[in-house]
Amino acid sequence: MKVPRTHPRYKSLKTREALSKLSDEGVVARTGLIAHGRGEAFDYMLGERTHPFAERAASAAAARLLLAKNPVLSVNGNVAALAGKEIIALGRAVPAKLEVNLFHRSEARIERVAAHLEKLGAKGVLGRKATRLIPALAQPRAHCTEEGIFSADVVFVPLEDGDRAEALVRFGKIVVAVDLNPLSRTARAADVTIVDELTRAVPNVTAAVSRMRRWPEKRLRLVADEYDNGGALAEAGRAMAKGLAEA
Amino acid sequence: MKVPRTHPRYKSLKTREALSKLSDEGVVARTGLIAHGRGEAFDYMLGERTHPFAERAASAAAARLLLAKNPVLSVNGNVAALAGKEIIALGRAVPAKLEVNLFHRSEARIERVAAHLEKLGAKGVLGRKATRLIPALAQPRAHCTEEGIFSADVVFVPLEDGDRAEALVRFGKIVVAVDLNPLSRTARAADVTIVDELTRAVPNVTAAVSRMRRWPEKRLRLVADEYDNGGALAEAGRAMAKGLAEA
Repeated sequence: MKVPRTHPRYKSLKTREALSKLSDEGVVARTGLIAHGRGEAFDYMLGERTHPFAERAASAAAARLLLAKNPVLSVNGNVAALAGKEIIALGRAVPAKLEVNLFHRSEARIERVAAHLEKLGAKGVLGRKATRLIPALAQPRAHCTEEGIFSADVVFVPLEDGDRAEALVRFGKIVVAVDLNPLSRTARAADVTIVDELTRAVPNVTAAVSRMRRWPEKRLRLVADEYDNGGALAEAGRAMAKGLAEA
Repeated sequence: MKVPRTHPRYKSLKTREALSKLSDEGVVARTGLIAHGRGEAFDYMLGERTHPFAERAASAAAARLLLAKNPVLSVNGNVAALAGKEIIALGRAVPAKLEVNLFHRSEARIERVAAHLEKLGAKGVLGRKATRLIPALAQPRAHCTEEGIFSADVVFVPLEDGDRAEALVRFGKIVVAVDLNPLSRTARAADVTIVDELTRAVPNVTAAVSRMRRWPEKRLRLVADEYDNGGALAEAGRAMAKGLAEA
């Protein structure tokens, strides 16, 4: 079915159709489509634009990634489908490894998500051979790779499940999340939570990485340490409440 | 994959899985999964409970349905999947006809949704032979049946697209909607909008129909006329904003 260009939600409907198609190809989980819708509603309340709290979070995220010894970007089906190119560009800019990690894990879908990223130009995608387990997390969601998430110091988790985000924090990782729900357990557990839509958030982090690349470690550390995630989440909640009241 | 019962979002995840399964069976559209997620976010802000503004709307909806000469309940894939039994029970209580109407219309899916309703016990489901068109609405969404929506005076549209809701209002129908987004065009176009989750809202309307069944027409008309939909939508927005700020 063709969505008319004049439909007021044209962009959102086109993204939905693209995700649906990748769901039929097995890259996106059926329930990933539902999770996407949930995010859509929060973005709607943000007026579908990047707010100052998300800009600050993107800078803190860039500082964390640049300070890391082994930064890893975790990619699930929705991330690959919505922002595959953008996450690959961020991986190159930092540089950071990409690891496929699914909420609804199956070897077949891991392969499809990894192949999708490779089709978009990604090299050295991790996740097919997940030999290690994140401690204190139910299988099969605990699976990860030795050289990737298991040994990472900073993990970038766009659109992550709350259980896994909390387990990563308990495991001692610095967690940078992208999550449109400022009340989610992921948003609250992470060290840095970018409350913004994925295709806006990831290029923002990449731009911040480019801008801050030559900064001395001390200055990067200052940005990372001064960042107040609780304050940013509270601001995001207020911005959405305002969006609801004004629209 | 089995969702552990201890997961804080167990109920929501189970509903997601049930919808995903019905999506694989062709009852729910892929993009219907996304639309469901969008609703989830708004319900999350309501604390996943029925608020007084939704109780008032359910009473006004019952009054409108009891006053109608030819009330029709419009059923799409998500409605059939999430609340098939509940919508059939409402149809019996009023009584009102059921008509299958899809956003992503295809003869095959109309058949599957109708067959799904019949499996749950529905009789005389309309929609397979849609010979009329709702005026001023792009095809194929304009299709409807002569004896159903085309000639109805009151149309109950749970989870309806804004374009079609507006077209029904322009066509002179009294429109009763169930919509978790108080800002949506459907919510604003309808005469009565129940801002509540579908499986809570539909049984509430059925209960109100039973309670009000023997009321004189004058008293029903008073309930219908005194109901303030704009006020209810504003209250819903404030309740969600409060939910965002407090959590």
